Amino acid sequence: MGALYNQVADQLQALINDGVYRAGDRLPGVRVLSRQFGVSISTVLQAHQTLEARGFLQARERSGYFVRLPSHDVPEPSMPDQRTRPVPVSAREMALDLCADEKKQMVPLASAVPHPDFLPVRQIQQSTIWAARRGLETLDYAFPGKACFRRQIAQRMATIGVPVAPDDVLATNGAQEAIILALRAVTHAGDIVAVESPSFPGILQALDVVGLRVIEIPAHPSEGMSLEGLQLALEQWPLKACVVVPNHSNPMGARMSDERKLQLVSMLDAAGVPLIEDDIYGDLYHTGERPRPAKAFDRSGNVIYCSSFSKTVSPGLRLGWMIPGRYMAGVRQHKYFVNLATSSLPQLAMAHFLEQGGYDRYLRQARQNYGEVIERLRSAVALSFPAGTAVSKPSGGFVLWIQMPDCISGTEVYQRARQEGINVAPGLMFSTTNKFENCLRLNAANPWTDRIETAVIRLGALAHDASNRAS
Amino acid sequence: MGALYNQVADQLQALINDGVYRAGDRLPGVRVLSRQFGVSISTVLQAHQTLEARGFLQARERSGYFVRLPSHDVPEPSMPDQRTRPVPVSAREMALDLCADEKKQMVPLASAVPHPDFLPVRQIQQSTIWAARRGLETLDYAFPGKACFRRQIAQRMATIGVPVAPDDVLATNGAQEAIILALRAVTHAGDIVAVESPSFPGILQALDVVGLRVIEIPAHPSEGMSLEGLQLALEQWPLKACVVVPNHSNPMGARMSDERKLQLVSMLDAAGVPLIEDDIYGDLYHTGERPRPAKAFDRSGNVIYCSSFSKTVSPGLRLGWMIPGRYMAGVRQHKYFVNLATSSLPQLAMAHFLEQGGYDRYLRQARQNYGEVIERLRSAVALSFPAGTAVSKPSGGFVLWIQMPDCISGTEVYQRARQEGINVAPGLMFSTTNKFENCLRLNAANPWTDRIETAVIRLGALAHDASNRAS
Repeated sequence: MGALYNQVADQLQALINDGVYRAGDRLPGVRVLSRQFGVSISTVLQAHQTLEARGFLQARERSGYFVRLPSHDVPEPSMPDQRTRPVPVSAREMALDLCADEKKQMVPLASAVPHPDFLPVRQIQQSTIWAARRGLETLDYAFPGKACFRRQIAQRMATIGVPVAPDDVLATNGAQEAIILALRAVTHAGDIVAVESPSFPGILQALDVVGLRVIEIPAHPSEGMSLEGLQLALEQWPLKACVVVPNHSNPMGARMSDERKLQLVSMLDAAGVPLIEDDIYGDLYHTGERPRPAKAFDRSGNVIYCSSFSKTVSPGLRLGWMIPGRYMAGVRQHKYFVNLATSSLPQLAMAHFLEQGGYDRYLRQARQNYGEVIERLRSAVALSFPAGTAVSKPSGGFVLWIQMPDCISGTEVYQRARQEGINVAPGLMFSTTNKFENCLRLNAANPWTDRIETAVIRLGALAHDASNRAS
Repeated sequence: MGALYNQVADQLQALINDGVYRAGDRLPGVRVLSRQFGVSISTVLQAHQTLEARGFLQARERSGYFVRLPSHDVPEPSMPDQRTRPVPVSAREMALDLCADEKKQMVPLASAVPHPDFLPVRQIQQSTIWAARRGLETLDYAFPGKACFRRQIAQRMATIGVPVAPDDVLATNGAQEAIILALRAVTHAGDIVAVESPSFPGILQALDVVGLRVIEIPAHPSEGMSLEGLQLALEQWPLKACVVVPNHSNPMGARMSDERKLQLVSMLDAAGVPLIEDDIYGDLYHTGERPRPAKAFDRSGNVIYCSSFSKTVSPGLRLGWMIPGRYMAGVRQHKYFVNLATSSLPQLAMAHFLEQGGYDRYLRQARQNYGEVIERLRSAVALSFPAGTAVSKPSGGFVLWIQMPDCISGTEVYQRARQEGINVAPGLMFSTTNKFENCLRLNAANPWTDRIETAVIRLGALAHDASNRAS
């Protein structure tokens, strides 16, 4: 029998195992449970802690206890092998199909775009109306960015360990443009650039636009780019840049530790290779503290920091920024050449939203939403997919990486799901070298509904089918 | 003595020659003049017609008579010679200096950016507030453009002889981006592209971004690109595209006739070379009818039409559009790769402004403003600059091209003027081959003030100085 709180814990665990409470569900409050089990509140609290230690519950600040799947139930994906040669980039057009598909009312598990329910629609509307009333300020030409926007960005950057002046900031049409400007500033067509593997397809597309060759460095599912792999590549190839997403990478959700960020920055600085950092998911950590960007460890101006509000406030604003460090002159010139400046209106609206504190208030809710949906999605995948499936365990952001057994074709699952109105991203998109054929990426930025859950279960069934056909 | 109206005409001409009425001034109304000269109103009207025939007056619909400089007083600039070989493009960074200078409260005669007084600030503000209230519509991701914006553009295009569907339209961050997307869709690095000479620097920068070589085709100051020159280039070189500004080109202000547009479109179609048309000044014709774009003569989808609202409504919106014809697939893919989509907010605001008729009402005033300032600027240049100076005679837009005698260095005038707080664009910027050293481009999109007039007179004095030092 054991202590009273252990009995309560066992009963709660049985309810979880029976599916009464499912992963992602919030447990009833302590007073309710105290009445339900006829025990004291302190016993309930001890039972909670016990289940947390067993891996069945997760405490969330000011929100109570949530059911989680014990982490040992789903292994993390394995690291890919390192390729020995750089290859030319020919980014896949599949992204365009995905984009078109999502407009057709398919279940939106493919693109990493937040569902409208998760966007701060009313708040940003107020800031946009404020901006619209600025009259001439919305119409004049803002190269290399609106002063008020750059000032707000500089203030935010200081809070995450990157003290910069407004003049060090350049406004862009999203992070994608920022990465392209960075690549243009430090490379020429045909140069070799290192990226993580699996890679965010946008980064591969950026390399394609600039005409670069890529060397893919294996990434650990929770620790990010292999620094040993990078060291090897630095020794073997005349790298001209390295593009990394150190915080909650896409698609794996890995987060490099501060120690590894420092090491990454130092290695590249010593080698004279610019580091292009994409921090677009940095603000979307699920718990704890805002992780610092690699730029916070940059002492020489060798890190080109890129980010945007497309994954937080809205993809439709098309508003990003970059801190190009010592590459500012080249970046400025390229920005001017490609489209002169970034639209003034979104910059004014975001400056107001930031200044009023609306962004921080919104982030608190968004982080919790994404953490919850990721947890539910992980559980649903673990329950539905064939044995041997591994799932990433992101500590931030809203994408999930699924590694199925080698015999299962992610492309086949993608194609069959598409016919059934379910949109997912096939693993092939995340490499230029036909790796990750057995993988899928799921977008977790949707409110958890029966429709979503049913779609994930169906994906699992399609994976089982593919597995049966293969064997 | 002659007829009474001739005497009145002679007296008015004397007043003009004495500088009592200066070029661009509006003559007093017919009733005032009738009292002043003690003649009948019909005599005044006859005197007006006489002076108009002599080239001293210009009638403007519903506005009365305005003083103009007889056109034979200032010759048009000559056509440049044709170069025999394509050259790599290395666009000058001077544009960035010009841009920075204008922020320093210099007299803004360099950049082709409208003065705020000429922008529809209040009207567009109303449309922007309307757009801001759309909430979610401003936040979602609009690839390849907002439906309402594309519909409005399709409606406008139909009125200028280009009947297209909304789906044929793609929204861009200004015309500069549109031109780059067009070049990316139809060329590869190292290819040869034909442009007008002198060229808009933005087009040379676009060629630089894509890594192209250029062949400069001489342009006639009022008739545009030499079709004979283009034919020669087509026979000699494997051209992959031809970029033309058929309506009110920058810097010369030339407008190709419909016959020549048809010939241009047919020549390039027959040669299998895509025509990239920049129609950014098309709506800013000073008198008469809206000139048709070359795209209106396109039967095969070989013309990629590019335009924007940066020269009309506001450069700060960063909103343009393109109609890529049969090159849509490539253009779409590149747009997605470089920055995914164009900001939704400016598209919604412009769609509303267009739908409400605000844009057309605004254009009527803008066209008259620019026509008047161009006229005043031409007169001031004719009066101030050394003998032998030629000046363009644009029928639309708001830039003026000044060709000084060969011995005068436009770069020297530019540098000395800059020290005195006057910003102009030196001729060197408009070519990649060090042509046009004796030229300057002036921006006429400023309300005509003493400060502007004094600056132009000062430029003339600096040109005289340069001429004296050279001889």
